[in-house]
Amino acid sequence: MRQVISTFIGAGALACAAAFLVPAFGQADDDATPIYGIKMPPGYRDWRLISVAHEEGMLNDLRAILGNDIAIQAFREGKLPYPDGTIIARLAWSYDPLEESAKAFGRLQSYVAGPPKNGVQFMIKDSAKYASTGGWGFAQFDDGKPASEAVHSTCFSCHETAKSRDFVFSRYAP
Amino acid sequence: MRQVISTFIGAGALACAAAFLVPAFGQADDDATPIYGIKMPPGYRDWRLISVAHEEGMLNDLRAILGNDIAIQAFREGKLPYPDGTIIARLAWSYDPLEESAKAFGRLQSYVAGPPKNGVQFMIKDSAKYASTGGWGFAQFDDGKPASEAVHSTCFSCHETAKSRDFVFSRYAP
Repeated sequence: MRQVISTFIGAGALACAAAFLVPAFGQADDDATPIYGIKMPPGYRDWRLISVAHEEGMLNDLRAILGNDIAIQAFREGKLPYPDGTIIARLAWSYDPLEESAKAFGRLQSYVAGPPKNGVQFMIKDSAKYASTGGWGFAQFDDGKPASEAVHSTCFSCHETAKSRDFVFSRYAP
Repeated sequence: MRQVISTFIGAGALACAAAFLVPAFGQADDDATPIYGIKMPPGYRDWRLISVAHEEGMLNDLRAILGNDIAIQAFREGKLPYPDGTIIARLAWSYDPLEESAKAFGRLQSYVAGPPKNGVQFMIKDSAKYASTGGWGFAQFDDGKPASEAVHSTCFSCHETAKSRDFVFSRYAP
């Protein structure tokens, strides 16, 4: 029985590892992002919190930055550059006034996260694979599907402004 | 050996449970909050994310709502009332404009979490112990120390406006 379970877990781990590989032999893969060939990292909604933010303008959202275990450790230790294997997730939701707290405070007071908005984004550190973009692969998924090549072509140029912090805007919120 | 480990874990669990008890026999306890007698729940910064928010006015912060495992499961299942053992944590940080993204966007665009602000708050569900306040104990810690009795006397009256959702303002952000 122990052998059966071990084999089952091994197969699961291989399947997970395979999910991150760029499609081989030029095969089309509808689940992987253009340019960077990234699939949605499983389980990211359970990752720990790095920080929170509000974007104004056209984005107009509330967002959370989550990190896998490697990311959380690097952020907490202030380690730069981020080690290979770091994955940072950016979730966002619409920026909605909260009616109940307006009642409690007697004025508009609170903005809370509404439905998901502006997709889910990831930065994945692999200094060999993504050497031409600071060691980072970028990914955006809208409603679970990879965003366009046009969207992905803008990621790195924007993040270059944070080059002194290894291209990461977020700081750890203690 | 198995017996030794089991005993050790048992003792650890007892110590954890004891940490949440109201001080017995009228002993003073500087680490516990007034009214509700709650000590800072250990490890809360590693809990998973429920949602994010921005408070305007005097509070002027960005905040994250985290939950222990019981809380996360209840939020995800939409379970009301929240089961005993639910703990919800509210962290907050100053609401700071992000210079790097202003450079990238050519205008003020992003607000991010700065230093911690407005303390850390908790809601702990124990329907027997906190029967007179909807089954919830409330706690605020400023710089790691329990806030005053005056602060704690305002918690429940504010949360009563969310009675239809078991006194919890936050909704789970998917």
